[in-house]
Amino acid sequence: MRRALALAVTPGVPLGPNPRVGCVLLDADGTTVAEGFHRGAGTPHAEAAALAEAGDAARGATAVVTLEPCNHTGRTGPCSEALVAAGVRRVVFAQPDTNPVAVGGAARLRDAGVDVVGEQLVDEAAAVNRAWTFAITHGRPFVTWKFATTLDGRSAATDGTSRWVSSRSARLDTHRLRALCDTMLVGTHTVEVDDPELTVRDEVDQPVAIQPLRAVMGLRELPGDRRIFNDRAETVHLRTRDPREALARLHELDRQHVFLEGGPTLARAFLAAGLVDEVVTYVAPMLLGAGSSAVGDLGITTITDALHLHVTDVTVLQGHDGEDTNVRLTMTPLPRRN
Amino acid sequence: MRRALALAVTPGVPLGPNPRVGCVLLDADGTTVAEGFHRGAGTPHAEAAALAEAGDAARGATAVVTLEPCNHTGRTGPCSEALVAAGVRRVVFAQPDTNPVAVGGAARLRDAGVDVVGEQLVDEAAAVNRAWTFAITHGRPFVTWKFATTLDGRSAATDGTSRWVSSRSARLDTHRLRALCDTMLVGTHTVEVDDPELTVRDEVDQPVAIQPLRAVMGLRELPGDRRIFNDRAETVHLRTRDPREALARLHELDRQHVFLEGGPTLARAFLAAGLVDEVVTYVAPMLLGAGSSAVGDLGITTITDALHLHVTDVTVLQGHDGEDTNVRLTMTPLPRRN
Repeated sequence: MRRALALAVTPGVPLGPNPRVGCVLLDADGTTVAEGFHRGAGTPHAEAAALAEAGDAARGATAVVTLEPCNHTGRTGPCSEALVAAGVRRVVFAQPDTNPVAVGGAARLRDAGVDVVGEQLVDEAAAVNRAWTFAITHGRPFVTWKFATTLDGRSAATDGTSRWVSSRSARLDTHRLRALCDTMLVGTHTVEVDDPELTVRDEVDQPVAIQPLRAVMGLRELPGDRRIFNDRAETVHLRTRDPREALARLHELDRQHVFLEGGPTLARAFLAAGLVDEVVTYVAPMLLGAGSSAVGDLGITTITDALHLHVTDVTVLQGHDGEDTNVRLTMTPLPRRN
Repeated sequence: MRRALALAVTPGVPLGPNPRVGCVLLDADGTTVAEGFHRGAGTPHAEAAALAEAGDAARGATAVVTLEPCNHTGRTGPCSEALVAAGVRRVVFAQPDTNPVAVGGAARLRDAGVDVVGEQLVDEAAAVNRAWTFAITHGRPFVTWKFATTLDGRSAATDGTSRWVSSRSARLDTHRLRALCDTMLVGTHTVEVDDPELTVRDEVDQPVAIQPLRAVMGLRELPGDRRIFNDRAETVHLRTRDPREALARLHELDRQHVFLEGGPTLARAFLAAGLVDEVVTYVAPMLLGAGSSAVGDLGITTITDALHLHVTDVTVLQGHDGEDTNVRLTMTPLPRRN
């Protein structure tokens, strides 16, 4: 299963609406007969890839797969049928498939007389497809809100200057995190004021080949010459101010992981609606003493109403060539305490 | 020398005006003959302690000592003389003694025909007595400014409530850091408004036996019933608003390490005067969105004038029993970039 999980996260697989899956076929001695992984929507599933490689050697084999084999015909046929047809005797899988359209693979296999063992290393497997699992379970994309701040909670000086609060390593790290999402979301105000291109760039500041969707939400009309509308990536304008509506629309577009990069107004709206699932904060070791607050008013007036977060990771982003060392905190919002 | 350094930091030695020193006496074969360490002002120096333990065995020995043996008669006689009298043939030391009244020990030893090797592991030895070394070199105490902040730079909610921004582990850690200093400094305003006791307390919230000096600075008269004037520790009122004057007065009182815990006004005055040598920040993973700023106005209006800090340590203070995990950043201010 560990090998199958490693196959699932083979680098270079484009993030798409499908989960990342790995499959290993073993013979009766436990020797690997074939391996496969899913290369993205429209290509064979991991099981199909492994079966194709195995040919007749699949007969009597055990299939170890990171996700319960699917039971529906999408752009490819159901994997449960393919495994039965190939004469696979035993299937060991990790994460159960809760996708309503694909569910039922294990039952179908058992009906056909295949020995099925489920839920091995299920947490590890779910982590590989965290956003996919979340979206299937909650019916909306997973939302990561990112903001950068000075040590004293500022995002810009009193004259509006803010280049750069974050260090180069923090900015590179942000591009790495953007690339792990399938959607970047800002408000119309940010587009009007800051005119960001909102693309993922590499270490030499070039746009990477596969770009997340650029989404802007809000009712204001936007001039077409804004950089967000250039041809470097796709862009969608969600004509709503309601975070729930915006996420519903993105879910329809098969989006699973939204990287929220807008200003304080957008962040406040998502926080108020309980629609922030993860917070990533870059802390720059810098004092401004005054200027724009990194986080806007949240309507909190007393300490017991503070929004607490559970820290899941603290990473020091070492500065190079005299640049500041920044600290990245990754957190999940906790329920209000009272 | 590593053993001598370990002796120097023997736990339980009260921090006083004297440096912490360890000494190992070795015979010709390199076997340890005796060990000693300095137990604080008024007690024998490390060399004297080791010589006393060795007795006649000191004849022909090598003394390994973490600080250049002193050459003056204070409350104890000069160690250089004592080493010569005991017949020590060789002295290996780490940090040179730059204290003007004690300087010259190595020269005195060489004059007496002792083989002297200096500056072994000098950085490690200087680190053991960082504040002492700093005070000797700069003629004023080392200043550590501590502040706690939410993730968004707040120290209290809009209604003034602030219990607790810092977690219990962060508060315990603060007491540990206070205990490593010999002076805690606040302004008269903090005493009037917050009435802190300003003592070091242990894990069960009891005051520890040896307390740092409590210093309050400012021109305002203070009512004698403030907790800072209770009998749990000594207190001094420095009748000045000038950080330089306050530090000069504390230097006269043999103070080497000031823990600055006052509010934004005091911090601003020390920062503006370039008299902050270290910054310790506790970041609580909590959002308030509004309320008092953890750091007051510093007169900075544009990003290129920001006060940058060099991060020397990042420590995660794990929360227990549902408490927040806090992050402690230790930093040194960098010179202004323009």
